[in-house]
Amino acid sequence: MKLGCCYYPEHWPEDQWADDARRMADIGLSLVRIGEFAWSRIEPEPGRLQWDWLDRAIATLDRAGLKVILGTPTATPPKWLVDQMPDMVAIDEQGRPRGFGSRRHYCFSHEGYRKECQRIVTAMAKRYGDHPAIALWQTDNEYGCHDTILSFSSAATTRFREWLERKYIDVDALNTAWGNVFWSMEYRRFDEIDPPHLTVTEANPAHWLDYRRFASDEVISFNRAQTAILREHCANRDITHNFMGFFTEFDHHAVGRDLDVSTWDSYPLGFLEQFWFGEEDKRDYVRQGHPDIAAFHHDLYRGCSNGRWGVMEQQPGPVNWARFNPAPLPGMVALWTLEAMAHGAEFTSYFRWRQAPFAQEQMHAGLLRPDGSNAEGADEARIAADVIDAIGPQTTAPASAALVFSYEAAWVCSIQPQGQSFRYLELVYEWYCALRKLGLDIDIVSPEAALEAYSVVLIPTLPIVPEGFGDKLAQLECPVLIGPRSGSKTASFSIPDGLAPGALRDLVPVTVQRVESLRGGITEHGDGFGIERWFEQMDSDLPPEYALKDGRGVVFKNGHVRYCGAWPDTALLQDLIERMAGEASVRTSRLPKGLRLRRSATHLFAFNYSAGPVTLDYTGETIAPASFAIAALGA
Amino acid sequence: MKLGCCYYPEHWPEDQWADDARRMADIGLSLVRIGEFAWSRIEPEPGRLQWDWLDRAIATLDRAGLKVILGTPTATPPKWLVDQMPDMVAIDEQGRPRGFGSRRHYCFSHEGYRKECQRIVTAMAKRYGDHPAIALWQTDNEYGCHDTILSFSSAATTRFREWLERKYIDVDALNTAWGNVFWSMEYRRFDEIDPPHLTVTEANPAHWLDYRRFASDEVISFNRAQTAILREHCANRDITHNFMGFFTEFDHHAVGRDLDVSTWDSYPLGFLEQFWFGEEDKRDYVRQGHPDIAAFHHDLYRGCSNGRWGVMEQQPGPVNWARFNPAPLPGMVALWTLEAMAHGAEFTSYFRWRQAPFAQEQMHAGLLRPDGSNAEGADEARIAADVIDAIGPQTTAPASAALVFSYEAAWVCSIQPQGQSFRYLELVYEWYCALRKLGLDIDIVSPEAALEAYSVVLIPTLPIVPEGFGDKLAQLECPVLIGPRSGSKTASFSIPDGLAPGALRDLVPVTVQRVESLRGGITEHGDGFGIERWFEQMDSDLPPEYALKDGRGVVFKNGHVRYCGAWPDTALLQDLIERMAGEASVRTSRLPKGLRLRRSATHLFAFNYSAGPVTLDYTGETIAPASFAIAALGA
Amino acid sequence: MKLGCCYYPEHWPEDQWADDARRMADIGLSLVRIGEFAWSRIEPEPGRLQWDWLDRAIATLDRAGLKVILGTPTATPPKWLVDQMPDMVAIDEQGRPRGFGSRRHYCFSHEGYRKECQRIVTAMAKRYGDHPAIALWQTDNEYGCHDTILSFSSAATTRFREWLERKYIDVDALNTAWGNVFWSMEYRRFDEIDPPHLTVTEANPAHWLDYRRFASDEVISFNRAQTAILREHCANRDITHNFMGFFTEFDHHAVGRDLDVSTWDSYPLGFLEQFWFGEEDKRDYVRQGHPDIAAFHHDLYRGCSNGRWGVMEQQPGPVNWARFNPAPLPGMVALWTLEAMAHGAEFTSYFRWRQAPFAQEQMHAGLLRPDGSNAEGADEARIAADVIDAIGPQTTAPASAALVFSYEAAWVCSIQPQGQSFRYLELVYEWYCALRKLGLDIDIVSPEAALEAYSVVLIPTLPIVPEGFGDKLAQLECPVLIGPRSGSKTASFSIPDGLAPGALRDLVPVTVQRVESLRGGITEHGDGFGIERWFEQMDSDLPPEYALKDGRGVVFKNGHVRYCGAWPDTALLQDLIERMAGEASVRTSRLPKGLRLRRSATHLFAFNYSAGPVTLDYTGETIAPASFAIAALGA
Repeated sequence: MKLGCCYYPEHWPEDQWADDARRMADIGLSLVRIGEFAWSRIEPEPGRLQWDWLDRAIATLDRAGLKVILGTPTATPPKWLVDQMPDMVAIDEQGRPRGFGSRRHYCFSHEGYRKECQRIVTAMAKRYGDHPAIALWQTDNEYGCHDTILSFSSAATTRFREWLERKYIDVDALNTAWGNVFWSMEYRRFDEIDPPHLTVTEANPAHWLDYRRFASDEVISFNRAQTAILREHCANRDITHNFMGFFTEFDHHAVGRDLDVSTWDSYPLGFLEQFWFGEEDKRDYVRQGHPDIAAFHHDLYRGCSNGRWGVMEQQPGPVNWARFNPAPLPGMVALWTLEAMAHGAEFTSYFRWRQAPFAQEQMHAGLLRPDGSNAEGADEARIAADVIDAIGPQTTAPASAALVFSYEAAWVCSIQPQGQSFRYLELVYEWYCALRKLGLDIDIVSPEAALEAYSVVLIPTLPIVPEGFGDKLAQLECPVLIGPRSGSKTASFSIPDGLAPGALRDLVPVTVQRVESLRGGITEHGDGFGIERWFEQMDSDLPPEYALKDGRGVVFKNGHVRYCGAWPDTALLQDLIERMAGEASVRTSRLPKGLRLRRSATHLFAFNYSAGPVTLDYTGETIAPASFAIAALGA
Repeated sequence: MKLGCCYYPEHWPEDQWADDARRMADIGLSLVRIGEFAWSRIEPEPGRLQWDWLDRAIATLDRAGLKVILGTPTATPPKWLVDQMPDMVAIDEQGRPRGFGSRRHYCFSHEGYRKECQRIVTAMAKRYGDHPAIALWQTDNEYGCHDTILSFSSAATTRFREWLERKYIDVDALNTAWGNVFWSMEYRRFDEIDPPHLTVTEANPAHWLDYRRFASDEVISFNRAQTAILREHCANRDITHNFMGFFTEFDHHAVGRDLDVSTWDSYPLGFLEQFWFGEEDKRDYVRQGHPDIAAFHHDLYRGCSNGRWGVMEQQPGPVNWARFNPAPLPGMVALWTLEAMAHGAEFTSYFRWRQAPFAQEQMHAGLLRPDGSNAEGADEARIAADVIDAIGPQTTAPASAALVFSYEAAWVCSIQPQGQSFRYLELVYEWYCALRKLGLDIDIVSPEAALEAYSVVLIPTLPIVPEGFGDKLAQLECPVLIGPRSGSKTASFSIPDGLAPGALRDLVPVTVQRVESLRGGITEHGDGFGIERWFEQMDSDLPPEYALKDGRGVVFKNGHVRYCGAWPDTALLQDLIERMAGEASVRTSRLPKGLRLRRSATHLFAFNYSAGPVTLDYTGETIAPASFAIAALGA
Repeated sequence: MKLGCCYYPEHWPEDQWADDARRMADIGLSLVRIGEFAWSRIEPEPGRLQWDWLDRAIATLDRAGLKVILGTPTATPPKWLVDQMPDMVAIDEQGRPRGFGSRRHYCFSHEGYRKECQRIVTAMAKRYGDHPAIALWQTDNEYGCHDTILSFSSAATTRFREWLERKYIDVDALNTAWGNVFWSMEYRRFDEIDPPHLTVTEANPAHWLDYRRFASDEVISFNRAQTAILREHCANRDITHNFMGFFTEFDHHAVGRDLDVSTWDSYPLGFLEQFWFGEEDKRDYVRQGHPDIAAFHHDLYRGCSNGRWGVMEQQPGPVNWARFNPAPLPGMVALWTLEAMAHGAEFTSYFRWRQAPFAQEQMHAGLLRPDGSNAEGADEARIAADVIDAIGPQTTAPASAALVFSYEAAWVCSIQPQGQSFRYLELVYEWYCALRKLGLDIDIVSPEAALEAYSVVLIPTLPIVPEGFGDKLAQLECPVLIGPRSGSKTASFSIPDGLAPGALRDLVPVTVQRVESLRGGITEHGDGFGIERWFEQMDSDLPPEYALKDGRGVVFKNGHVRYCGAWPDTALLQDLIERMAGEASVRTSRLPKGLRLRRSATHLFAFNYSAGPVTLDYTGETIAPASFAIAALGA
C-alpha cells in the first residue's frame, strides 16, 4: 500500500514547495493529491487559463519522486462563472438558491454548467493527459457533500420530466405505476410533473423514488462526462472519485463502474460524533471512533470498482466539522492506516499535508501544523510507512461473509420509514458489526455481485428485489439470511401481489400479513433474545426457527435460506450468524470489546480500538490501546 | 348502530366491485363511503365530466344492499385545475406556496377555487341528488388536515381585510380594540393590514385572534357553500363532514350546525403516539391507545350536531402516519367499535375496505389486506356486528357531567400560552379523564349549550366569556367548577377591567392579581394535592376551599360555583369531582387502571383498555385484556 | 440612586395622567421614561406632526416634580412609512423580509430609513431640546432585540461592499486576508461580494467576521446619527441607550462611547429561563434569578460609558416573554433595586408603570396592575426608596478584579465554536461567578481599558489580541490569568504565525500544538480538579503549574501571567483565583450558596438570593430569603 497526502500548492508560497515535497518523501509518502479546488487559480477570469503555476507545482513534486493525483476543479466554480449564469446553483427543498461562498454551489442538472465543466476538464486533460508524474485523476470532490444531490431547480425539473418520459413513454403508464389515482394525483402530460417538494403533506413515495433515481442518474452522467474526457486524453491513467462516509444519496456502485479505483474519505472521529451511535459508544470510543466505521467503508467501497480502492482522505488529527472534535489517541492514525492496508487499499492519503491557517478548514489538523512543524499525524504516518515496508505488499484474501448493500434500499427506507427508527444504514451497520465481532472477513457487495464464493450471505434488507436476484440466492449452497422488509416493494414502490416478501417467497414460503414499528424502549422477547423497532406478523406452513414467547415466528428457515421478519437485537443476530457459520464450517470467535481482526492473503491483522489493553486469543499476545498486531498467516 | 367502510372503487378493477360489495355485506357492513378523492376521475379534463364509472360503482353497491355515503371531491383538486389558477394554493406561514402532489392544496379564501367547488358539487348533486342508494353526503374531507386552515395568501389577505371592515366598520375602532397604539401599530386604512406572519417578533395577539376567527369563518363559509347546494338538490339526504381528532383550528360547533350529522376519524394508536402523552402512557397503551381518546371525541362531536354523530374512519389495524405504528391488540378494533356504540354513534365506518398497495397510504391497514385476504380488522368488525345485532339499537342516555369546550379558548391559549406547557386540549382532556375515571358519563358541550339538565358542570378554561354565559351559570343549581384563566380576556384579547375572572367575578368574588407559569418539575403543594404549570394569586373575601400550605388559595367556592386558579394535579381534580358529585348525589367510583364505563339508555358498557385482565366492581366480572362487558341496566 | 419607571401616556386616558404622576412621586420615583414607541401618535400621517399630547404629558409629569427620559421613536416606524418604502425592512438569514406588525422592522443599512430617523429625531430634539423637565434622552430602544442586528437586504449588501472597499482598498488584499484561494472563493471586484448567508455549507469565517464587524458598525453609525442631532439641539442633556442582557451582537463598548450613560434592561427571571443555566439552577433560583445575572450586567455596562450607567428597565414582577414566567419571591424587586445601587447605578427605572391590558405585553407585570391597584412591585419600590434615602448616595468603589470582555471575541467564538459547547458568554459568566462567589468586587472592562489599578486581571478568552494589549499586560504587576483560545486568531481570522497564543507567547512562552473539543460528560482529571469542553495540547519549556494526571499541562505561569489552555471546572477556577488573590494580598472568602457581596465606597451590601436564610460570616447576621443586609464599611 502506498501512502500519500492532499496538498494545495496554491495555498503556500512557491518557494516552500520543494521543501514540502522533500519532507513528504522523507515521511514515506509517494502520492500527492492536488488541484481539485483550484479553478479560480487555473482560470482567474473567463477564458484566461493560467497553467504555469500548476506546471511548476507538478514538476516540483515530480522532481521529489512523488506521483500526482490530479483533481478536476468542478466542485468549486469561481464567482465569475456563477455570476455569468446565476441559475446554475442548486435550489434546496425549501425553494432557496444555494449560493456562492463555500463549495458545491452547482446543480447537477444545469446544462450550462455541464458545458463549462466539460470545457475546463478538457483543457486540463489535454494539458496534463500524458504527463508522466500523473498517476491518477480524480473527478470533482465528494459528490453530495453538504446535502447537494437533490436540487429542485428549474433545470432539474426539466431534466426530470425528460427522464420520466424516457422511462414511461406514456404518462398513463406513469400514473398507473405511481398509483396516481390515489388523491387525484393523475397527470395528463409529463410537463405537468414537478419535483416532489413543498407539497402539503408527504408526496407519493413512487414520485420520490423516481426523483431519487433521477438525481442519482444525474450524478452518474455528470461524472461520466468527465471520465469520458479523461479517458480520451489521458491514456493509461486511472480515474477515481473520492466518496464519503455513511452516505447513500446516489448509487455509488453505478458511479464506481465508471471509475478504475473507488476511494473514500475516512474520518472515524467525526463520523462517531455525527451519526446514530449511542452515548456509551460516543464516550468509549471518543478518541478512536467506533471500531467498525473505517472497516465498514473499506469493505463497502472495495465492492464498487472491481476490488480496486483506496483512502483519499485519512483523518490525521482533530477535524473541524463535527459538533465536538476530539484528538485521536496516540497510535490511532497509524492504526487506521494499517486497517486500510489489511482491507486491501491501494493507497492511503492523509488530508491534508499542512493545516491551512485560513478559511473554513483552519481548525482541521494536517500532518504538519500551520507553522510547518510535524504534527502527531506526520510521526504516525512515518511509523505506518515503516510497518508497510516491513511486511511488504498485501493481497486481498477472499472474504467468508457477503453483506448485500443496495443504495435503492436506502432510498426506500428513507422515503417510507414507517417507523422513524428504521434507518437503512444503521441496520446494515449493525449486521456488519455482528459479523466482525465474530472475527469474520466481510465483503459488502451490490445485489448484482456474484455470491457463490461466500460461506455466508446476509441481506439486511432489500425492499425491491432485482430481477433474477431470488434465483441467484436459490442457486447458492451456503446459508443465506434475509432481513425484514425484503421483497416488500415492487420497482414502482407498491406492495407486491401476494404481499411481502414478494419474489423471495419462492425461497422462504412466508407471507407478511402485517407490520408494526415500535418506539424505543418497547422490546418483544423470545427465548434469550429480543426484537426491537420492527416486527412482521408472518403466516407460514413452516415452523419458526426463532419465535417470540407467545409463539409468533421471528425467523423462518427453508433449506439454506432464512427470513428474519424483525429488527433483531445483538443476541439474536450473533446467534444467527454463529449458527450459519457453523453450518458453513466457518470458525467464529466472540472477540473482546474493541478488538477487531482482518486477514489479507498472507497476514492476520489485529486492531485494538479500546482505550485499554486487550488480549488476542489466537496468540495470547496483549495489544496496547490504540495499537495493533500483525502475524503472518500459517505461522 | 350501523357499520360501514371507506371504499375507493376507482382504485380497483371494475370486475372486483361486486365481490367486494358482497363481502362487505357478509361482514355485517351496510354503509360505504366513496368518491371524496376522485375528482381526477370524475373530471379528467376541464369540463369533461365522466360519471359512468361512478354510476356503475353506486349501482353495484346498491345491488348488494349497501347504502352509500358520497363525498364531494374538493379536498383533491386535479393538476389541471391548479395549473389553471396557480394562486389557488395556500401560502404557509413562511411565505411558501403549498403545492400540488398530495392533497388539500387549496386556499379556503380563493374565489376562483370556491367557484370551481360550487361547479363540481352542483354537478354531482344534480346527478346523484335523488339517487335512492345515497344515504348521506360528505363535504370535502378532514378540513384542516396537514395544517391547512391558516393561509397567508393574497386571496386570504384580501378577504381578511373585508372581514375586518365588516366587523369594525371604522379602522379606529379596530385600532382601539386591538390596542394598536402599543408599538405604533396603528393603521389608517383596512387595506394596510396584513396577516400576522413574518413579523419581527410576535404579532399583536388581538391581530392573531381575529385572523384565527377569520380563518375559521372561511371554513364555515366554504363548507356552507357546499351544504347549500346539497340541500337544494339532494332533498331528504343528511349531510356530514368528517372531523379530525385533537384538532381545534376552526370552530367545529359552528360547522356542525350546518350539518345533520357530525362525524370524526378515530385513530387511537396514532393519536397516542403523536400527542402530548407521557412515556408511561405511550408504553402501557401502545397497542390500545389511551382509554379516553376515542370517548373524548365521541362526547365532543356528539355535541356538534344536536346529538347526531358517527365515526367516519375507524382505525382497523396499524396506520402509516405516526412516528411509530404498532398493531392494535387483538380485540381492540371490536372494542373501539362498541365504545362508539355505547356513546350513541349512528354508525362506525372503517378506514378502509382494502389496504391500497400504492401511493401515500400503502402502509395503512384496511379490513382486507392488499391481496384481498381478511385482515384482523375484518374479523373483529364481524364480531362487533354480531354484538350489535345481539343487544339491539341503543339510545343515548342523558349524561351526568357537562364539560364546556370552546374552540376560541383553544385559540386564545395557543396565541398566548404565557407558559409553554399551558395547552388547552391537554387541560380539557385531563379534566375529561378525571371524570371518566370516576365512572361518569359526560357530554362535551359548547358554551352556548343548555346546562340545566346536568348534575355537575365543569369549565376547564374559558378565557373569553360569552355574553350571558355567567348568568346561565348563576341560574344553575348543580355544582359548577370553573378552571384557571377563565374570564381573563375580553372579546378583543385584552385584560378585562377589574381583572380576571372578569364577568365571572359575579359568580365567585375573587380577583386574580398575578399569574405565574411554572416549568416542569416545579410543583406547589397543598394538603394531599399539588398544582403545576400555572398558579393565580387571588384576592378574595372568601376563605379558600383548597389552599397551598402557605395559605394561598387555590379553589374558592361561592354557593354552587367554584373557581380553581391553578392547573390542578390529578389528586385535586379527583377530589373536587368527588366532592361535587357528592353534592349532586351522583355516585362515583374510582375505576381500576384501564377500565372505563359508559351507559346507554338501556345498557352498561365496560371496556378494558389494559393489557391485563381487570375486575369490574359492579358485577365481580373479570374482563379480558382489550375486551368488554355489556350488561342491561336495571338487571 | 434615583428611581423611575417607564410610562406610556399614549396608552391611557389623559385625565389619568396627573394622578399617575402623583402616585409615582408618592412611591419614591423621580424619573419617567416616555415616548420611545410613540411615532404613530407623534406623526399619525406623513409630515403631520402632533406634539400637543406629548407637550401636555411632559408638562403633567413636570408639575409632579418628575424628570423625563425622552426616547426617540425609531424602533417602531409606523405602517405608512413602511408602505412608503417597503424595502426598508430587514431581510433575515433565510431571505425573508421581516415585516410590520410588531417592532424593530427596519434594516440599519437602509438609507431612506436613516433619513426618516434623522428627520423625526431632529423634529423632536428641536421641540424638546431645552425643555427643563427633560433629564436624559434615549436613542431608539434595545438595539438588536429579536435578532435584528444582521440583515441580508440589498441595502446591507451595498453598504457592506462599500465598507469592505474602505477597509481593503484593493480586492486582492481582501482575498489574501480572508484566504479566498481556499475553495476558489476569490473575488475580482468588491461588487461580487454578498453577505455570507445561504451558502451551501459554512461561509468563510473571515467573511463572517467582517460581516459582523460591518453590522456592528452600522449600529454605531445609526446611533451616532441620532446622538449628533441630540447633541446639537439638546445642550447639557445626557444621552443614553438601553442595552439588553446576555447580548453581544454589536460592540456595546463602541456605542457606549457615543453615550453619556449606558443603561440596560434587567430581567433576571426571564434570563434564567432563556439562557444556558442547568436544571438545578433553574429550579433553585426559579423566583430569584441566578445570583450573578444582574450583577454581571451592572459590572459590564458600567464599563461602557466611563462608569456612568443605570437600569432602564427593571423587572417588577412576572414577565410575558420567557417559556415560563414565574413570579419573583417577595423581596426580590427591592433586592434587585439595591443590588443596582451597590454597583453604582445612577438610577433604576421599573418597566413599566402600569401593566397594559392590551397588545403583546399585556401579561408583563407593571408596578401597578391593569386596574390601577398597586402590584407587589410598587410596594417593594417604596421599600427600596426608603432604604436608599436612609443610607444616602453611594459612590462606586474601585474593584479589586478586572474581567476583560470583548464583543469581537464573542463573534469569533460564535462563528467558529469548534466545539458546540464553547460559548463565549457562558465562559465569561463562569469566570465572573467564580470571582463573585469569593466575595470580590469586579469591573468588566474592554480590552482598551486601563488595567493597572486592579489587584487581579482575568481574560477568559481573547482570540484576537489587539495591538499593544500584550505590552499592557506585561507592564502590569498584578496576577493575570489568560484563558483558552486567547491569541489564537489574527485580525483576519487566521491562525497566527507561530501558532496560538500568538502575540501572548511573549508573556507566557507556550505553543498550542493542537486543540480538542469535548462533548458533555467527558472530563479530563487533574489532581482535585477537572477540565471540560476544551483542551489545548501545549508545548513549553516551563513546568506546568497545573497538569492532568498524565502530566499534560493545563496552566502555565510565567512571572505574573498565567495561561490556562482549557475550559476549567469550578474547582480549578476557584483555586486559581484564590491563589492569585493571595499573591495580590486580596482577601477572599467562599460564600454560602446564594449569598453575594458588593461594596460601595462606604457600605458593604450583602444579598441573599436563596429561598432559605443564610448567615453572613462577616457579621454573624442571618439574612432572610430574598433579602439583604447593608453595613457601613469601617464600622
